Order: sequence, then C-alpha cells, then structure tokens
Amino acid sequence: MVENLTIALDAMGGDRGADMVIPGADIARLRYPDIHFLLFGDENIIKPLLKQYPRLEAVSEVVHTDVAIDMDAKPSQALRKGRRVSSMWQAVDAVRHGKASLVVSAGNTGALMVMAKVILKTMTNIERPALAAIWPTLRGESIVLDVGATIGADSRQLVDFAVMGEAMARAVFSLEQPLVGLLNVGAEEVKGLDEVKEAGRRLREANLPMKYYGFVEGDDLGKGTVDVVVTEGFTGNIALKTAEGTARQIAEYLREAMSRTLFSKIGYLLAQGAFRILKQKMDPRSVNGGVFLGLNGIVVKSHGGTDAKGFASAVDLGVDMARDDLITKIAEDLEAYHGGEIEDLAGEDKQLKIEKVQNS
Amino acid sequence: MVENLTIALDAMGGDRGADMVIPGADIARLRYPDIHFLLFGDENIIKPLLKQYPRLEAVSEVVHTDVAIDMDAKPSQALRKGRRVSSMWQAVDAVRHGKASLVVSAGNTGALMVMAKVILKTMTNIERPALAAIWPTLRGESIVLDVGATIGADSRQLVDFAVMGEAMARAVFSLEQPLVGLLNVGAEEVKGLDEVKEAGRRLREANLPMKYYGFVEGDDLGKGTVDVVVTEGFTGNIALKTAEGTARQIAEYLREAMSRTLFSKIGYLLAQGAFRILKQKMDPRSVNGGVFLGLNGIVVKSHGGTDAKGFASAVDLGVDMARDDLITKIAEDLEAYHGGEIEDLAGEDKQLKIEKVQNS
Repeated sequence: MVENLTIALDAMGGDRGADMVIPGADIARLRYPDIHFLLFGDENIIKPLLKQYPRLEAVSEVVHTDVAIDMDAKPSQALRKGRRVSSMWQAVDAVRHGKASLVVSAGNTGALMVMAKVILKTMTNIERPALAAIWPTLRGESIVLDVGATIGADSRQLVDFAVMGEAMARAVFSLEQPLVGLLNVGAEEVKGLDEVKEAGRRLREANLPMKYYGFVEGDDLGKGTVDVVVTEGFTGNIALKTAEGTARQIAEYLREAMSRTLFSKIGYLLAQGAFRILKQKMDPRSVNGGVFLGLNGIVVKSHGGTDAKGFASAVDLGVDMARDDLITKIAEDLEAYHGGEIEDLAGEDKQLKIEKVQNS
Repeated sequence: MVENLTIALDAMGGDRGADMVIPGADIARLRYPDIHFLLFGDENIIKPLLKQYPRLEAVSEVVHTDVAIDMDAKPSQALRKGRRVSSMWQAVDAVRHGKASLVVSAGNTGALMVMAKVILKTMTNIERPALAAIWPTLRGESIVLDVGATIGADSRQLVDFAVMGEAMARAVFSLEQPLVGLLNVGAEEVKGLDEVKEAGRRLREANLPMKYYGFVEGDDLGKGTVDVVVTEGFTGNIALKTAEGTARQIAEYLREAMSRTLFSKIGYLLAQGAFRILKQKMDPRSVNGGVFLGLNGIVVKSHGGTDAKGFASAVDLGVDMARDDLITKIAEDLEAYHGGEIEDLAGEDKQLKIEKVQNS
C-alpha cells in the first residue's frame, strides 16, 4: 500500500471542474513521482486538457462518465441522478473495488458524503461518518471534527469522533500521543451540553490509550491547545466558517489600512516579504481538504472553490493517510474501544445478576 | 428617562475590580456630562480611588457593600453568598427600585445572569434571557444573540431572541428596519437543526414588522450580511470565542511577520498609522459589552478582563439603550408578537373544535 499509490479523482467536481482538477493533479504528481491517477469524468473535456500535461497523462487513466453532480444538488437528487453513472460515484467506487487507495473530490459535499456512505459503508460500530478538517493554529495544525457531515451527536458518537480524530492526528501529524479535547462553552466539568459532559465522562473513564485533555473553548481552536478538537457537526461547521470569515475580515481591514496613505504604501512595499509570509499563513488553500472518517475507505473532500494548488493540498492529505494505513488503524482503535465497552457492559450485567440473586 | 441618567456600577466586578471600574466610569463621565453614578462596593477601596477623580466623585454616590462575588464562583454559590449583601446584587437591585436606569458589571457572567433573573424577573412570555453581543463586521457592527446566557433554545425562544435583538438593533444602531438572520449550516431551507428550521418558518409566517433575511452561515458574521444574527447560547458562545481566537491568532502572525527582517521593521515604522487603525478595528475593547435581553431592566455585562476604556464602552452601550427606552420597546414588540400568536392559537383551537364536531 505504501508504494505506487493509485488515487481516484472526481475530475468533474468543484466550481471549475476539470480546469482546476487536472492542473491540481499535475502539482501532486510533481510531489509524488510514484503516484498513479484514475480520472473520472467526461473524456471530451479531460483528454484535451491532459494533452497540456504530458507527464501527468503518462501516469493517468481516464474513465469516461456521462453524468456530473451539480454543486447545489440535494444529496437525494444527486443519488438518484448519479448512482453508478456519475464521475463522483465511480471515483468512490474505485476505492471500494481496491482499484484506488483513496478518492479526492471537490464536488458537492452532501452528495459525496451520501455516496461514500452508500458505497463504502460505515465501519463497524459507527453509525455516521464525521468530516474532519485541518485547522491552522499558533502551534501548527489541529484536526477538528465533525465540521458538518451530520447534525447533532450523542455522547457515544462524540467518543467515536475522538477515537477516529486521534488516529488521524497520529497519521497526518506524525504524533505519538495527540492531545484530544471536547469543544464546550466552559472548561469546568459542570458546564455545557449534556452530551458533551457525558462524552467527557466516557473519555476519562474509558481507559483508552489516548491523552484526553478535557473541555476546550472556541478560542482554543486558534491557540492550538489540543491536537484534536471534537464537536458535533452543527457547531463545528459554524465554528469553521466563523474562523474563515474572521480571517477574511481582518485581511480586508489590513488591505484597507495599508493603502490609506503614501507612507503606509511605502511601508507595505518594504515589508512585502513579511506580508507574503502572512498571506501564506492565512491562505486557506495550504490546508485545503476535509476527510470523511468512519468509512471503509479514504475519502477526501476538497473545497469546491479551491484552485489547483489547493486541490493538490487535498491530495497530500489523502496520501499521508493512505501511507499510514489510517483505515486499518481506526478500525483497530474502534474495535479496542467498543470491544472493551462490551466487556464492561457484560461486567455490569453480572453485577446486576448477583444483586438480583441477593435480593431474591 | 432621557436626561440625567443614573447608572449603577458593580465597582467590585472584573479581574481588576475598582482599579478598572473607577477610571472607566471617569471616561464615561467625560462623554455624558449629565450622568450620575451609584457605585456599589467596599467604600474603603472605592473612596480613596475616587479622590483621584474629583469630577467623577462629584457626580457619584458610594453605597458600601461587604461582599464581592468571586469571578470563578458557580452561580448557585454566588447567589447563596451574595444575595442582598453583594455589590453585584445591590447594583442590579437599584434598577429594580428605579434608583438607576441601568446597571453595568464586569463580574462573573453566570452570577450576574442568575441574580439579574432573580431580581428583575424575565419579561412576560420570556422564559430565559439571552446575552446579546456587538460583533464588528466589514459593514460596521451587528448584534449576535444568544452568546452564552443559556444552552439550547427551541424555535419559540429563537423567535423571541429575534424580536428582542431587532429592537436592540433599532436602539443601538439607530436603524429603522434592521435585517434579521438565523445562524445555520446552510442557506437552503431544508438544511440545519429542526429548531432553527421551525424558527425560520415562524419568522416568515409571523407577519412581524421585521425584515427577516433567512438563514446565515458562520462566515456571514464577519461579512455583516445581516444586522441581527440569532442563535442559541452554545453555538453562539463558541462562534464568539472562535472569532476572538482567530483575531488574536492573526495579530500574532502579523507581529511575527513584521519583526522578521530589517526591511519589514522599517516598513512597519512607515506604516505605523495604518497599523494603529488596524489595531483599533481589531480592538475588542471598542465593542466591549454584552447585554442581557428579556429582563425587566437593562443589564450590561462588560468583559471581566477589560480595562477602563473597554468598561466605558460597555457603559456607552447601556446609555444608548436606556435613552432609547429599549425595555419598553422590547415589551411592546413581544406583546405584539405573542398577542398575535395567542389569537392564532385560539383560531387553531376553533378549527380543531369544528373538525371534532364534523368527525363526531
């Protein structure tokens, strides 16, 4: 699995489709010379584009599909129209059949999530997948999940997210013991949503080989207080978009301020190198890509509005996870957790029986 | 109510207590020469400080209290220890007795919320107050509520938040018809939490004199897409703290980048004016202060860690609302909404009765 990775790409996905995916794949090819691509989509669009990237063409196979999923289609519509025949479906299906180690799509998030779930199925004990995002922080990067795959999560699902996110952090950040926190409105154990408090109790008591930090708050995301931040999809999605919006807002303030006077313009020119570094740090493209966790296969979701560079970052993320054999590791961790939990329950049952005997 | 406002201040509240509150009140006094203050707290601390601000002293009355609420006390503890005898309790109580038009405290948020609820009571039809924050945006400022007074809200409560936030936006921003949105994970009507979808339906159908925009997402907060953003306290608190954390994170990136090379340092010096403007825009002190809405009185919560300037901004906010007679306006709006709703329900009941008659 480590060498000669094959990557399935939904070449029709994203606001700009193949015009963005093909050059993006070419950037990824430069980084990983031993990679192969399966490009799913309209060959009349893909093949002429590939001619411009002969080295990419040499390591790619085009699989023609007739249907492309609309970016704003509802998941149910997408499934009706795109089952078996769409580029997105076939790209995901290539992972199921072992033809590819992972799939990357910049297409419709809801459709990708539903198709991936139908095709790859969720792992044992997992009801619903989570979408994990890479979050830039003052300490480096963290993983935040769920950022919007599903809405609401009970305490068991939050613990599953913690187990999956922790395994991903080991793979993607090469950490031995990532620190895991639960997103809440206060650090004290008595505060917050019942599901979150209960998940905290489970994580403390579960005896998992995991460094559980406790609760974190919204401002801990940017600080990088923990390596993995666990939350349910509604709050996670709003936190992610709030941070993106705030970054854009400050960039706009900065742009306005620097173009206000002659002095500030000269200052800007002198400090151009510094601004370039700042821009890179704030560039959402450098950390583009979320991953659906909890499925029997690696599915990477790139931003729909990204460019070739951002798409290549999403491919990077998938390659890191495939090389680390993330799916096997997550399956093992979940088995260890849920296996242990079942034993505990059996223990409780015994206890109950003993009490019953004593009472009767 | 418009002239000669009297403001009750919890002089013991905040990380620095009277050392911050007294100079803060002095800044506010400069802005509003016709204002009076009631300062609640330990006179042995307050009176010597007041000596340094003779003009403030001239318009202030000190009311001695023996107890100060700890910043990290649980609300229940605070209530047990501080009922009647604490600076916070007595400052809020001054509003109930009409001795002050509003109260400002930088103390323990949970304690202030509980005491304010016990003393002032919630308005008719309102079960739980909301904490409304002023949010800086690219278009100016918006009101976001609830940012953490209570966790969870059903659709009726979300509509109440919308009615109260809209009245506050008219008062604080001097807008005739503020635009109101519901925070959600997608703009489409089919997406999101059931409570939020149901609140959206109620707002569209309620025939309120309100400009309801529809759903907004996390990145609309910074854009300023609407004047009032409605959400429940868990998500609102996490969004607020995420935005604050992101702003601090980018300020840190900027500081690092500008001190990296000689050129960037010179550039920084030349562009100092621009950076000062940026700093002001990003300064949380200039928009310091949340307001508890849904109570029979104006209660302003200043950040605990703020300085004198920030505290004065919180006083500003309260003065704007008192001058606009916000409480009366909110009460009228709620009456109009719930009055109408009660009629509707009566109508539904009639409908039901008719159906029953037909079925029997």
